[in-house]
Amino acid sequence: MRVLVLGGDGFCGWPTSLYLSDHGHDITIVDNLSRRKIDIELEVESLTPIRPISERIRAWREVSGRDIGFVNVDLATEYDRLVEVLEELRPEAIVHFAEQRAAPYSMRTQKTKRYTVDNNVRATHNLLTALAHSGVDASLVHLGTMGVYGYGWSGSAPIPEGYLTVKVATPDGELEREILHPANPGSVYHLTKTLDQLMFSFYARNDGLRITDLHQGIVWGTQTEQTIRDERLINRFDYDGDYGTVLNRFLMQAAIGHPLTVHGTGGQTRAFIHIRDTVRCIELAIANPPEAGSRVLVRNQITETHRVLDLAKMIGDVTGTEIAYLPNPRREAEENDLAVRNDQFLALGLQPTTLSQGLLDECTDVAARYSHRADPAKIVSRSVWRAGMETADDLLTELPARLPEPQ
Amino acid sequence: MRVLVLGGDGFCGWPTSLYLSDHGHDITIVDNLSRRKIDIELEVESLTPIRPISERIRAWREVSGRDIGFVNVDLATEYDRLVEVLEELRPEAIVHFAEQRAAPYSMRTQKTKRYTVDNNVRATHNLLTALAHSGVDASLVHLGTMGVYGYGWSGSAPIPEGYLTVKVATPDGELEREILHPANPGSVYHLTKTLDQLMFSFYARNDGLRITDLHQGIVWGTQTEQTIRDERLINRFDYDGDYGTVLNRFLMQAAIGHPLTVHGTGGQTRAFIHIRDTVRCIELAIANPPEAGSRVLVRNQITETHRVLDLAKMIGDVTGTEIAYLPNPRREAEENDLAVRNDQFLALGLQPTTLSQGLLDECTDVAARYSHRADPAKIVSRSVWRAGMETADDLLTELPARLPEPQ
Repeated sequence: MRVLVLGGDGFCGWPTSLYLSDHGHDITIVDNLSRRKIDIELEVESLTPIRPISERIRAWREVSGRDIGFVNVDLATEYDRLVEVLEELRPEAIVHFAEQRAAPYSMRTQKTKRYTVDNNVRATHNLLTALAHSGVDASLVHLGTMGVYGYGWSGSAPIPEGYLTVKVATPDGELEREILHPANPGSVYHLTKTLDQLMFSFYARNDGLRITDLHQGIVWGTQTEQTIRDERLINRFDYDGDYGTVLNRFLMQAAIGHPLTVHGTGGQTRAFIHIRDTVRCIELAIANPPEAGSRVLVRNQITETHRVLDLAKMIGDVTGTEIAYLPNPRREAEENDLAVRNDQFLALGLQPTTLSQGLLDECTDVAARYSHRADPAKIVSRSVWRAGMETADDLLTELPARLPEPQ
Repeated sequence: MRVLVLGGDGFCGWPTSLYLSDHGHDITIVDNLSRRKIDIELEVESLTPIRPISERIRAWREVSGRDIGFVNVDLATEYDRLVEVLEELRPEAIVHFAEQRAAPYSMRTQKTKRYTVDNNVRATHNLLTALAHSGVDASLVHLGTMGVYGYGWSGSAPIPEGYLTVKVATPDGELEREILHPANPGSVYHLTKTLDQLMFSFYARNDGLRITDLHQGIVWGTQTEQTIRDERLINRFDYDGDYGTVLNRFLMQAAIGHPLTVHGTGGQTRAFIHIRDTVRCIELAIANPPEAGSRVLVRNQITETHRVLDLAKMIGDVTGTEIAYLPNPRREAEENDLAVRNDQFLALGLQPTTLSQGLLDECTDVAARYSHRADPAKIVSRSVWRAGMETADDLLTELPARLPEPQ
């Protein structure tokens, strides 16, 4: 299948591009390298030494014999170029990762709030407009987030896959309606994914676009079967307070002897998925698009749920790392339960890669190997949800003596 | 009260500015004159000869002795200027009309779809970010639309004011939840108002902004007690296929002897409000904002509902004008019923200005007085919801002999 991977240079996009290429798809990455530029702005780097995109692609050709195309386009601002790319390449599927994806970054400053909305909304809407008008009949697979649902909204009922059945009282008795699950975004980033949902719904209905929205949990892990084949193919590993995600941060912190940073009580329960399952889910999604004229197909892309504190304790126990309870920079409930339906991907054959000591070790090993690249001043989260909220001081000011590299 | 009227040069914004000024409020209009520029792009003009904004403001000073300020700012792109204006003027209330407001224009081309989303979303989000960070404690009153609800969604139950009570099944029995009414936008324009709702909800919750969202029906009429005081204060009258709204178009068509343009069967039932009530509702809304920390206050700003064909028949019967049944350029149901709650404004003391022969005559008189300014080639709607949909030819190629001006 001819597939465009928008945002194909990012943490999920790059391993997805390699996986799909490895499985015989004809891949073109469309990316404006914004993620790398934000690293520069934040003065932080991926813990792993990622290579320039052209070197990545060259290495993949050497390793696999397969070509991946690359086009540098800013989807939010270069509309005409986007239309040209669509008409020239005529993809059969488009995977859309091309949005600013960190909640803390989206709450950091006025500028980053505005960038997140302006970039994400315009990128998605430009894509929809271009698809509606170009006549390119590609199915669209978009990376949403579990965060669109919020936490604890539906009591003991598990979060459904996108649509919720509700009863509405009318003078003629109760009416049953299936609605898009009410939006309860926890940050400006999550807000943009709820805006995306409404745009998708409109364009599916008005223009018959075939759209799948994948509400993904927190991704952990770094390497996939493809990225591991050559060091030049290595995937990003974000550990900083803005882009690092909770489980990977704990593993990295354990690797360098930094206390595990739990915000608030750690009573937040979250949904998780390993990066190896992310790439599989994307392939399942592009292989099973909705029919034209159908409503947006929503699938929950998660394999398990864990309480943040439980993860910290587990990793703390195994590695002998202490836990630091820090002020929570987010406005969120101290604790929540979470049950999520994920029947669709299981029915399509996904074999979940759940938390296991082996995988945790693999990840810690990656972190340890590159621990000398870490900047301890970037670990504590300081992007707060409202001005004046308390943040913590750095817990570690110098890196420990260099750890032996695992073989 | 110090009030900023964003979009204060437009069809609703201008009479609102005058009404609030007349009632003792201290008004500054913020507008980038985009509505006038779209007229140039569409090669059409307001039927009424509206004057430049500075002449309008000068005339108002002569007539009333009151000053209205004016600042030309593009809210979507000139963020720093917006922040400056807020900090300099420190308004107590902000009325936000500053969005592209025509559904047909929003569906016209790729460019107008993108402009509508890019302009409306960024203008609203910039405003929210600026309010959250500037420390200016102004309540925000936004003009939404009845079109966020869609038509016929809740069966025989009247459309509530923003929030809908639903029952959700859980393993522990049914849960009652009050949700934002599900979004069912009928065009890209309406879509942007549903996106606004989610942004308002987030910023009210995260930042404690005090926000009122007014879901307005189709506005008809032209003049208010203020705009009528001097010809230089006259309000816009849009009759063209993109910006003209149904009832005013019928009245103008009757005035120049053009068949009344009914799209499809005319079985669409819509909500209406006279421009004189719009301005009163805005004053009631700014005088009764929600508390900080409350959810968004949603009020339906409508006074009556009518079936489009009934309006056409009524006006056709009185004026002896025939009805032309034209293809419907929209994707919508042929017919719908509509019941809408509007208890809130009634409770606040609104005395509805409902359809009456006197008001219809007044409007037809305005249309007749300026009928020589009409371009008959701009009357038939040609912006279609999907490429290839049928449109009609012009029904009148020349204006009838000039009508005598009513005294």
